[in-house]
Formats: sequence, structure tokens, C-alpha cells
Amino acid sequence: MAEANFDARIKGLSDGQGRFSDQIHAMIERLPMFMKCSREEIEALAAIMKVYQAPPGVALVEEGEHSDFMMVLLEGGVRIVKEDSHHQRKIIASVVGAGTLLGEMSMADGEPRFATCVTTSPTTFAVLTRDSLDRIIQERPALGVRILEQIVKILTQRLRQTGSKFAEYL
Amino acid sequence: MAEANFDARIKGLSDGQGRFSDQIHAMIERLPMFMKCSREEIEALAAIMKVYQAPPGVALVEEGEHSDFMMVLLEGGVRIVKEDSHHQRKIIASVVGAGTLLGEMSMADGEPRFATCVTTSPTTFAVLTRDSLDRIIQERPALGVRILEQIVKILTQRLRQTGSKFAEYL
Repeated sequence: MAEANFDARIKGLSDGQGRFSDQIHAMIERLPMFMKCSREEIEALAAIMKVYQAPPGVALVEEGEHSDFMMVLLEGGVRIVKEDSHHQRKIIASVVGAGTLLGEMSMADGEPRFATCVTTSPTTFAVLTRDSLDRIIQERPALGVRILEQIVKILTQRLRQTGSKFAEYL
Repeated sequence: MAEANFDARIKGLSDGQGRFSDQIHAMIERLPMFMKCSREEIEALAAIMKVYQAPPGVALVEEGEHSDFMMVLLEGGVRIVKEDSHHQRKIIASVVGAGTLLGEMSMADGEPRFATCVTTSPTTFAVLTRDSLDRIIQERPALGVRILEQIVKILTQRLRQTGSKFAEYL
């Protein structure tokens, strides 16, 4: 899947022609995830990532759907909701502020979305598709490695948090 | 930390001179994690990973300790044990058989070991240190990317499993 296919209420800020890349550049260069990237790498990322804005109450991804892009939160917040085995919707996390990575699990393994992400305030986010990441890895392996290492770190931190909470229930 | 500093009951099968690399080669080339690697990449891995054997009942890593290597199970099994906030030791998983990755969380984020891994049967495992992975990434970015992508996939699958169980308790 190459592109994100969003709800009509989600508005694209970039046009894929690099017209908004200065603005996107300014937003993504502040993210911890891309801290170690060179100026030139940030420019490459700004040209390849598309930025979107959503009002509150919109699902950016829905549990169970098939899509394989990941998102980096630039502004705003989302609630992460998952159905349990009795179809009860549980809020498993609420995240706010710049830098949170969302949707990287389906990007990593190609499986359906694990949970639904619903905006809780006006939200701006940047999208990196699996195809774009593959292209970065091919064309700029050093940048590809940096992104993968960041994803590994973020997944590890989540696993530590979830695993610790889970151990309490056993 | 460059090297694994193991309990005296854990015996090294490789000597770092490549003397056991045929044997190691035969073991690691069957692992799903390295399935997409070329013959030549498998040889490079076999030369860089050290293989150890442990009797049952030995801790390969201990919760809270500082070390940053990861292990790939080749034969045997381990029990993964974690203390909850009341210092009760809980078995959070039992794994058996070739291919399971262990210890990748501390390799990824440099934080103390999340849990203790205790062998449940005679166990053979290959060790990749953080330093070796950094060297692979530097010298063979394509292989480095492949290993990182596998780690991302494995972490994602664990997060899906743990997250699903956790949602049941909320």
C-alpha cells in the first residue's frame, strides 16, 4: 500500500511537490526521533513525508484495517482504543505532543492495525509510508538505519511499559 | 559493553578465531531471522556471533543487570521471569526451540535487563554484542538493515501479544 487513504475531514498540508517542505522541515527537525539526522537528511525526510491536519474526534487509523504507513505526531493528541475479546472498547493509551510515533506496528509487520487512533484535539501529523521507508533504506542506508534504530528503541520502551504493567496482573 | 560476561557453567563453543564457524554457520542459517541473508552474509554472521552452551537452571541474563548483547536460541529453552512491584517473581513467558531472540531490549535502548532468562533444558545460543551490531551496520549496511528490520518485526509481534493480553485486564 503506497498511500494513506484518510477520512475526508483530514486535510493534507503537503502536495508531494515539496511546496510545504520548509514548514515540514521546521516541524520535523525538532523531533527527538530525527535528532541525529544531518540537515540534508532532514531535508530528504521533509520532502518524502506528507503532513496532514485533523480536527478532534477523527480516527487516523482503525483497528483491523489494512494499511502500512506510520505517523509522527507534530501537534495535538490522540487516544488509542482497542477492543477486547468481548468487543468492549478500551482506552489503552492517550498521547499528546510532538514526537510520538503511531502506526509503526503495521508498518513493521504488515498485519492489520492493532488499535484505533482517535484525535483528541486539532492534530498535525507527518506520514511515512512503508514504500517511502523502503526507498530511503535503498537509497540512503545510513538514514534508513537511523530510522530503524529509532523504531527499535520506541518499540522497546513500549514493551518495557506494557510488560511491567502486565507482570502486575499475573 | 563489548562482551558477554557469563556464569562459569556456560561454556563457549566458539573461540573468536572462526574455528567453530562451520558449526555455527549450519545452526544460524536455519533461523527464520536470517532467512533472507545471502550465503556470504551468513558466513559473516557466523564469524562474528559467538555460540555458548548452558545446562538447565542457569540465568543467561539477570533482571536489572547492565549488559547489551542479544541472544538467538539455537537449541533448548528458557523461562523468562520478572519481579513485580512486590518483589514476587512471575514467569512471564516460556520459550523453546530455535530462532527465539532474547535480550534485544537492552541491546536496543541500553537500559538494564527487563527480565531474567533461565534455561529450562540444555541450551545452545548465539550471542551478538551491541558493538558487533554497530560494526555490521557500519561495514555492511544492507545486512545491518536486515537485522534491524527483523528486530523491529519481533518486537512488534511481542507488543501485539502483550498489548492484547493487557487490554483484557483493563
